[in-house]
Amino acid sequence: MDAHGAWREVERDGERDAVAVEEPLEIRVDGRALSVTMRTPGHDEELALGFLLGEGLIDGPRAAGLPDDFAANTIEVAGPLRRDPGARRFYTTSSCGVCGKGALEEVAVASAPLGPGPVVDRALLAILPDRLAQPTFELTGGVHATGLFDAAGRLLIAREDVGRHNAMDKVVGRALLDGLVPLSTKVLCVSGRLSFELVQKAAVAGAPILVGVGAPSSLAIELAADRGMTLAGFARRGRTNVYTGAERIRA
Amino acid sequence: MDAHGAWREVERDGERDAVAVEEPLEIRVDGRALSVTMRTPGHDEELALGFLLGEGLIDGPRAAGLPDDFAANTIEVAGPLRRDPGARRFYTTSSCGVCGKGALEEVAVASAPLGPGPVVDRALLAILPDRLAQPTFELTGGVHATGLFDAAGRLLIAREDVGRHNAMDKVVGRALLDGLVPLSTKVLCVSGRLSFELVQKAAVAGAPILVGVGAPSSLAIELAADRGMTLAGFARRGRTNVYTGAERIRA
Repeated sequence: MDAHGAWREVERDGERDAVAVEEPLEIRVDGRALSVTMRTPGHDEELALGFLLGEGLIDGPRAAGLPDDFAANTIEVAGPLRRDPGARRFYTTSSCGVCGKGALEEVAVASAPLGPGPVVDRALLAILPDRLAQPTFELTGGVHATGLFDAAGRLLIAREDVGRHNAMDKVVGRALLDGLVPLSTKVLCVSGRLSFELVQKAAVAGAPILVGVGAPSSLAIELAADRGMTLAGFARRGRTNVYTGAERIRA
Repeated sequence: MDAHGAWREVERDGERDAVAVEEPLEIRVDGRALSVTMRTPGHDEELALGFLLGEGLIDGPRAAGLPDDFAANTIEVAGPLRRDPGARRFYTTSSCGVCGKGALEEVAVASAPLGPGPVVDRALLAILPDRLAQPTFELTGGVHATGLFDAAGRLLIAREDVGRHNAMDKVVGRALLDGLVPLSTKVLCVSGRLSFELVQKAAVAGAPILVGVGAPSSLAIELAADRGMTLAGFARRGRTNVYTGAERIRA
């Protein structure tokens, strides 16, 4: 097991093998349990802050650490929150139902407009995943990664987790603690697919460019277009597909 | 767009491209909103029933369909539920915190013991992912898949979704409607990684064998061992790693 407990050994087919650790983490705010997420241990404080920022519940760094009762797998964050965390998501009216448009509007409320941001070479964007440090993945094959890069393609922060959303939350939480949010001059890079949730987190953190190794979903593209974000997918073998915000891409 | 709206065309780099559709779905029980999940449209009834079964909230098929108010992206399921859906997850005590052991115990409460189940050739298990029909993935590269197989390796049900848990829920929900649950003679196969959540859903559905293309997490292995399930990962190129329940594997 490493220092954070991100991986550990198991017996498999009579041999020793390394697997990524997955354990629940409870996020409390002012003593009130808010959420339980299955995550890879390590950087729990960053995870909690990044999660709360992405949900629009905080807008700056907060004190976070073990709760007073030292409860295991629990992180305590100082309140107050910006809104009631119990409010329903994507709610419209009972006769209309839930819809992607409602989800887009919710993110718009939680996020400031993105600035023009940097212009990045397409070839550089395509190789950012290769620069993403993934030590736990190399051992286990079982974690996702997120990286924060500057516009010159230098890696600033990298985090891994069994949950792709957690890896993003940890990077954003670290950036928040380091005074880097909003990420208006930065590029976020993920090792997997581009879901609505990941674009949401990037948008609320103010990142103008998000690139991923995998495919984007329809709603991820709609949200990126709505927020004016550059969204690029399938970043592999020196190539990448640009779905929105092509004005920030230099051929 | 296909009949279910599982994929649609977007403009990308000046060309037409197909992407997987992601939209919210609200699950209601007796008119009460229970959960919102981001899913790929299609088979919503199966998704809702599979989800409720996996959470231990129902133990048999239920009527499910559009709500009386015809609200879009909403599915209405007939109650009552087996327990209060608002009960906290993985809760122990405030001075102990949350832990993987609590999560394991929760699944044990919701699931009957697994039977001995079939014995399957390791080589057959390893090629099940190749038999998993993935039409939307072939078009978009953006969805996960789950398949239900019999012990001879015949594909019975296959479903795709932007969320890996949703693909599993849809398969289990279909199996529930077809009278196949508990899946005591069957094999479940997933296109991605093996998380705690996927093992939970397979365990509650009574599946004795779960195989995946990706890596298992530590808690997925612990839960499989606790429930007596056979868990195999990295099923690729005719090989697979067996982590638990090797007594059901024939060399």
